Amino acid sequence: MRDQAPENMPYFFNPGSIAILGASINPEKPGGRPLTALRERGYAGRVYPVNPRHGEIAGLKCYPSILEIPSAVDMAIIAVPSAFVPQAMRQCGEKGVKAVVVFSSGFAEMGSQGAALQEQVTRIARQKGVRILGPNCLGLINLKNGVMASFAGIVDAEPVTPRTLGFVTQSGVFGATIYLQALEKGVGFSSFVSVGNEADLEFADFVSHLLDDSETRVVGGYLEGARDGAKLRSVAAKALSMQKPLLIMKVGRSRAGSRAASSHTGSLAGDDQVYDAFFRQMGIIRIESLNDLTSFVTVFRSGRRPAGKNVAILSGSGGAGVVMTDKCESLGLNVPELQGATRRLLEQYLPPFASSANPVDLTARAETDPALVGNCLRALAGDDDIHTVIVNVFLADRLAPQITRDVIDFYRSTDKTVVMIAWVARAAKEVPACLDRIREAGIPLLADGQEAVRAIAALAWYQDKVTGPPVAEPESFSPAPEAKDLLAVPKPLTEYQAKRVLAAYGVPVTREGLAGSREEAVALARRIGYPVVLKVQSPQIAHKTEAGGVRLGLVDDDQVRAAYGEIVENARKHAPGAAIHGVLVQEMIDGGVEVIIGMTRDPVFGPVLMFGLGGIFVEALRDVSFRVAPLSRRDAEEMIKEIKGHRVLEGMRGLPPVDFEALTDVILKVSRLVTDHAIQELDVNPLVVSPRGAVVVDALLVKAEC
Amino acid sequence: MRDQAPENMPYFFNPGSIAILGASINPEKPGGRPLTALRERGYAGRVYPVNPRHGEIAGLKCYPSILEIPSAVDMAIIAVPSAFVPQAMRQCGEKGVKAVVVFSSGFAEMGSQGAALQEQVTRIARQKGVRILGPNCLGLINLKNGVMASFAGIVDAEPVTPRTLGFVTQSGVFGATIYLQALEKGVGFSSFVSVGNEADLEFADFVSHLLDDSETRVVGGYLEGARDGAKLRSVAAKALSMQKPLLIMKVGRSRAGSRAASSHTGSLAGDDQVYDAFFRQMGIIRIESLNDLTSFVTVFRSGRRPAGKNVAILSGSGGAGVVMTDKCESLGLNVPELQGATRRLLEQYLPPFASSANPVDLTARAETDPALVGNCLRALAGDDDIHTVIVNVFLADRLAPQITRDVIDFYRSTDKTVVMIAWVARAAKEVPACLDRIREAGIPLLADGQEAVRAIAALAWYQDKVTGPPVAEPESFSPAPEAKDLLAVPKPLTEYQAKRVLAAYGVPVTREGLAGSREEAVALARRIGYPVVLKVQSPQIAHKTEAGGVRLGLVDDDQVRAAYGEIVENARKHAPGAAIHGVLVQEMIDGGVEVIIGMTRDPVFGPVLMFGLGGIFVEALRDVSFRVAPLSRRDAEEMIKEIKGHRVLEGMRGLPPVDFEALTDVILKVSRLVTDHAIQELDVNPLVVSPRGAVVVDALLVKAEC
Repeated sequence: MRDQAPENMPYFFNPGSIAILGASINPEKPGGRPLTALRERGYAGRVYPVNPRHGEIAGLKCYPSILEIPSAVDMAIIAVPSAFVPQAMRQCGEKGVKAVVVFSSGFAEMGSQGAALQEQVTRIARQKGVRILGPNCLGLINLKNGVMASFAGIVDAEPVTPRTLGFVTQSGVFGATIYLQALEKGVGFSSFVSVGNEADLEFADFVSHLLDDSETRVVGGYLEGARDGAKLRSVAAKALSMQKPLLIMKVGRSRAGSRAASSHTGSLAGDDQVYDAFFRQMGIIRIESLNDLTSFVTVFRSGRRPAGKNVAILSGSGGAGVVMTDKCESLGLNVPELQGATRRLLEQYLPPFASSANPVDLTARAETDPALVGNCLRALAGDDDIHTVIVNVFLADRLAPQITRDVIDFYRSTDKTVVMIAWVARAAKEVPACLDRIREAGIPLLADGQEAVRAIAALAWYQDKVTGPPVAEPESFSPAPEAKDLLAVPKPLTEYQAKRVLAAYGVPVTREGLAGSREEAVALARRIGYPVVLKVQSPQIAHKTEAGGVRLGLVDDDQVRAAYGEIVENARKHAPGAAIHGVLVQEMIDGGVEVIIGMTRDPVFGPVLMFGLGGIFVEALRDVSFRVAPLSRRDAEEMIKEIKGHRVLEGMRGLPPVDFEALTDVILKVSRLVTDHAIQELDVNPLVVSPRGAVVVDALLVKAEC
Repeated sequence: MRDQAPENMPYFFNPGSIAILGASINPEKPGGRPLTALRERGYAGRVYPVNPRHGEIAGLKCYPSILEIPSAVDMAIIAVPSAFVPQAMRQCGEKGVKAVVVFSSGFAEMGSQGAALQEQVTRIARQKGVRILGPNCLGLINLKNGVMASFAGIVDAEPVTPRTLGFVTQSGVFGATIYLQALEKGVGFSSFVSVGNEADLEFADFVSHLLDDSETRVVGGYLEGARDGAKLRSVAAKALSMQKPLLIMKVGRSRAGSRAASSHTGSLAGDDQVYDAFFRQMGIIRIESLNDLTSFVTVFRSGRRPAGKNVAILSGSGGAGVVMTDKCESLGLNVPELQGATRRLLEQYLPPFASSANPVDLTARAETDPALVGNCLRALAGDDDIHTVIVNVFLADRLAPQITRDVIDFYRSTDKTVVMIAWVARAAKEVPACLDRIREAGIPLLADGQEAVRAIAALAWYQDKVTGPPVAEPESFSPAPEAKDLLAVPKPLTEYQAKRVLAAYGVPVTREGLAGSREEAVALARRIGYPVVLKVQSPQIAHKTEAGGVRLGLVDDDQVRAAYGEIVENARKHAPGAAIHGVLVQEMIDGGVEVIIGMTRDPVFGPVLMFGLGGIFVEALRDVSFRVAPLSRRDAEEMIKEIKGHRVLEGMRGLPPVDFEALTDVILKVSRLVTDHAIQELDVNPLVVSPRGAVVVDALLVKAEC
């Protein structure tokens, strides 16, 4: 079921009336600024200043208390010192206010005393059915109806249309800077929300609401850390199903504390790795800079989506064409050589020495022949192999009007994605009006070629995410009832127990058995077939090799008998008090590629799966990929392809590729296992994959402390 | 010896007189624009228009031919159609002109006919001792003395001071765009040179000259491909020794044709990999975008150089501080937690809930307390652990003057690198003058925090390159006379021969000998000690394993005898006509890490060395590093550290690290070998390195075709 935004949301974004507690006569103060801004931006509802020290502010009657306002109040802004906020909140509740924006600081951001005060305020609100934005926030604005519930400088900035971007930020000041700078670059906002301490409503709640807003075509955000990973996932899934792009700047990479963990997976899954994987999994476009935000929004809001990754570049400068081509190829876009009719047409218009291969170099003729750009565009129109066209031209007064007409005509005649990069002479007179016409036609217009390519690459990736196999739909297969009993042991699981749990989920494991004596070991070895491996099994011995508890490549009964004795003796010496369950007799697996499938529990997202090649690849190169459980088949396939060493799986040195379906199946079954049960850490290491299938050779499973 | 710029260079940049062949009365035309521009920018020398159709242009006497000009002419600009250029060049030569700028197009860029014409013009110039810039170029300008020998729009742009950047470009239009956009961002140029077809003087020549110019503190460039790698290397070494940064945008990555090659090294060394390695080796800062160019120049031209990689960040926005910290850490800079006295001082000035740890969050107090920034800066002044300070503040009218004074005072009181990022309210009145004062004080001022961090990281890297062990000084060791004889064989070398060449250079190889019979093989095996390896040796069999020509792990005489017979028989079947030199009997090497040292011949840079871990690391991950030979010890050490898998060498799973000195020595000796002799390709694969040293186990050597 699609994520639902909290039900009080309309009272934040479209209140019929607003009270301001702590209203001020000084329009520069938090309690004064919204009063001016609401009027200037044409808010049509009722506004009630509340302050016992004034009878009237800015021509409006001022009430000593919210309780004395004669009519109903939908939204309240609280701009009083923190110590008075509990009382203000109580009165809002009594008045039946549905939505409260708390500007005041002095709460959880100030240490434990502030946190207690915040807790108190939240408790009051919850009792009264009031929802809170903040505290310690810049508030929110809705440009559509002039709801200026903010004291930040953003309320003074002249709005820009079309209002396509809804924005939610966890940093007030930085968010406001983003707002102002994006506005200057021509990005129009529908709403802006600063969530502050998120005492009640959080980042994901507002994103969910903005997705429902019809005017908002793109939702952006600045995120330091999600409070509830599952909620963010559900909101991201909603965004994908609505095909509304989420562009989020996630920061705090370097803060990722390395967690103490006994598994590889735990030590490799830094916060940022997990967020990055989660974004990729859920189709969230990760914004790296403010430049990204403005260029991505400009390209995404056009609504055009490329049918593939092929780009044609028309460039008035050969050098700029090469720079963009480099950037395209480094980001996974293709700049294919143009062929056939397209090529022949281009050759008609271009000088004989020009490159018509792609990037198309318009040469100096672009500065003398105003029809050249239009002719070349028409040549590209019929080429179905081209999905995106970049037009990079120098606009001088004499040429600009015709080029503008031709680009707009081309844009209307095609469903290809089109991005225009215009270099403008500083003294140009005709050009500004031309640029306006291009923008009004809905054509993304940018100043920098490399930024344009980054945006196009993000759009192509997003389009693939939207149109490809479903994201986040776990595969269903029949449950495995015995796994629960297998997990119901008091101590940490041994390898043998862990493998039985995996087997109960249908994951293929090595043929093996647990021997309690030399002769049982020999009998098992004969049944399995030589050569075999012997490994001591004890809940207290996690690292069997270090304990001298492993013998490989045993080829006959005598070797098994001798190894059994040595292993048990070594284990007793190594861990005198350990309970030894016996010795695992296991078939010896030869050949194939060793991979790891691991799982760790992230504090925000819960179970996270890791995949990588075994041994030195993981340890030396950290060449691993992550996904948040549960995984869809697509997720599993993507995480296999994502590692740099995937070529090893595709068959090196004349070997055939491994059985990818078997590998994908194991990942999906592990995903199901860690979703069904409270598991803290799991390392399937190694899983040996070969052209003939996959088999678990060793596994470590740590249950969650319940 | 330091690279010397060609001796005619002063005639290009500081001519006493300029003739314009093909002078035009139309100031928009290539032959007209320089006339206006020379006057407007105050060129003090004599200017002679040359055109038989006019008696006077723009108030200057116009000559029918350059030969009729009564005085000497230092520089000529040729702006006539290409067919007339040979004659014009001849006349320039007769007149004794030293420097000719050829605007005209219609040469090598137009195909083979044009190339022949260009060849003719160049030959004439060479005979007469004339040096050429161009043809097919936008010319050059020198802002210091108004030499406007260009017809590009850049001559009309109002220059910016200080004139710190000298710029050389292989793309005219793109270079001009870079010039204009950088100017708008406040970057002042000393000179700008568009090199066009480089018929005579090339990119590196002009860079060399600009390095000698005292006003030019930073040299920038746009490079598609160097004509002469050795010259570029020598110019880069000159730049390093002068400590003048070279900032070069190199494009054409995706054009790297994959070369047909029999060695790993050859197939992995794409053009761009080699350029990238060369830049890193020679301390050239690679520019990725126009934003980089302007921000890097702004930071580099200050002349401050950080003593290390530690950065303190003072930020008016917590979010922006986190974003910059992330960027610092992703680029190898540290943002260490502040300690001791620094921390205690900061805590005095900041609110109790603020972070004084680093990044320092100035909190909302930054917007009310104008002394806060100054106080915090003074707290940092005494902290020797901090090498660079980033000040990121919002400048409002009320606060700006004091913050400006404090930042300037701090800058003058310290030798730390300081970068200021200012966010400015759009309506601010006082602020622009404050920003000017900051710029005038020499403090790098940027608008974007992430770009600032990129520039600081580049500066720290550059400073390390300048102050660390010498770059590009090959180690000297005694020559190896027998290598020449060993290489003087008519056919491709066998492994045994290749290893003897390496051994002659002091590279340790496996103990081994060439056997011509079963019994010789047995005798050799006994002398070497079992187990041994047998490998067939034939110049015609490059892939011995595929030919069935290798047997490993032979433990006694009988096995050696049997293997000898099989190997020879297999080889005869596999390659019936091959000359079999015998069978190599080689000690079997156990343990250690396999690495590859390879060499390929780059068309621009000559011999290029490659280093990587062996086997699957190179094949699946392409995790390799390159350096252009000859290598210094520092180069060899850096190329070892550069691969992602270097952790494997440092000792995984409790193993001790390998003998890095032995490994470095082998690389240096291979570098010397490929510098001394004409070798086309070399793969030392594998070299086995262990804590006890390094030994070559197999090698492929292909001589260059002479």
